[in-house]
Amino acid sequence: MQIRIYYEDTDAGGIVYHTNYIKYCERARSEKFFKNNFTFDESGYFLVTKLDAKFIKPAKLGDIIEVKTIVVQMKNASCTLEQSIYIGDEKIFVANITVAYMANGKLSKVPKEKMEVFQ
Amino acid sequence: MQIRIYYEDTDAGGIVYHTNYIKYCERARSEKFFKNNFTFDESGYFLVTKLDAKFIKPAKLGDIIEVKTIVVQMKNASCTLEQSIYIGDEKIFVANITVAYMANGKLSKVPKEKMEVFQ
Amino acid sequence: MQIRIYYEDTDAGGIVYHTNYIKYCERARSEKFFKNNFTFDESGYFLVTKLDAKFIKPAKLGDIIEVKTIVVQMKNASCTLEQSIYIGDEKIFVANITVAYMANGKLSKVPKEKMEVFQ
Amino acid sequence: MQIRIYYEDTDAGGIVYHTNYIKYCERARSEKFFKNNFTFDESGYFLVTKLDAKFIKPAKLGDIIEVKTIVVQMKNASCTLEQSIYIGDEKIFVANITVAYMANGKLSKVPKEKMEVFQ
Repeated sequence: MQIRIYYEDTDAGGIVYHTNYIKYCERARSEKFFKNNFTFDESGYFLVTKLDAKFIKPAKLGDIIEVKTIVVQMKNASCTLEQSIYIGDEKIFVANITVAYMANGKLSKVPKEKMEVFQ
Repeated sequence: MQIRIYYEDTDAGGIVYHTNYIKYCERARSEKFFKNNFTFDESGYFLVTKLDAKFIKPAKLGDIIEVKTIVVQMKNASCTLEQSIYIGDEKIFVANITVAYMANGKLSKVPKEKMEVFQ
Repeated sequence: MQIRIYYEDTDAGGIVYHTNYIKYCERARSEKFFKNNFTFDESGYFLVTKLDAKFIKPAKLGDIIEVKTIVVQMKNASCTLEQSIYIGDEKIFVANITVAYMANGKLSKVPKEKMEVFQ
Repeated sequence: MQIRIYYEDTDAGGIVYHTNYIKYCERARSEKFFKNNFTFDESGYFLVTKLDAKFIKPAKLGDIIEVKTIVVQMKNASCTLEQSIYIGDEKIFVANITVAYMANGKLSKVPKEKMEVFQ
């Protein structure tokens, strides 16, 4: 998944505002679901519960970045992903992100068809 | 209502990203409701339908801005406000903003207690 | 230019937060410059000075919107564009946006090669 | 430091969009500097290099949250902080955040007067 860096993504330091890399990871996760025809469904969705990130090098206005996602661990009610951001061949950000599945307001088993989206 | 400008508000041009002034106006409107003990209520809320804005001078990182709100016109189902942003005595932004009241998914009469918040 | 609506674009009302439509217009303007190999250049850039917008219908999570840009007026130091946002054939937002060209901190003649990007 | 949750902070899930908690931590760090009369200075600034976060419970529209910051470790060129977010007495988010000091584009010793801001 490729993403262009626009003005809104940058800050007065002239580089991408740090939290935005975490947004791009979320865009990449959501895009997988949208591409598989899932729509937003209040009855069951993923929440980020844990995040462990390294900011290696900043991206700048006009850059095209790429988000790559690998499944690290699938559990019954959660999933840990490694999401990396690249500019060309250079890795500029990496995060381990755990998302938990919530249904009817509580932690629940990930439905099989949603688990398959990550795999 | 006073607002501090943080990194997240700025862009690579070194100034506040233009759409954020419109966010600050929304914060000021919402704050009036929160201060009057209104919480978010899906059964009835305001939507921005029209916006006419002039960007006079940019704000910068660390600035403290102030949003001032005047009612221009109250109608049955909508309200037009003039919202201005100042740094000290200097006006840096002004907008006429029309918000319409939606209840059960359609344009509806603004309830009296909500109308009073703007007045 | 097509844009997907992600979680970050929406608010608790379940729809796109109103200022984001104005962000998408900026993305579309910037994309034209990036596609023409312009990079960010502190020595000369466009600032939004005037905005007149109508919010016709909200977009929702997962929607794919399209931004269309027409030049309304070219002046020496500014340019007025009409930018419309569509979902399929349905127009959901339209704005008249005036951008002024700033060089060395003051209003300046738009360079010919940048004027051509809009035309 | 107290922060009100506005519409812009929430997403279609009806709660605060996850990356925003990390923004609030940055606001709290910056506020310390602004309160001590530091302005943005391209010649030397902090970059987030590492982030380890737990999202315990979501905040909602209208909530007032509080960010608390503790210094975990001060090194020559970086600083690790523990930043927690509370609603009343309840901790809803906690992160260990490492910021590195950059001067003239490279990792540098934190100036004494900036180190004192964190302490």
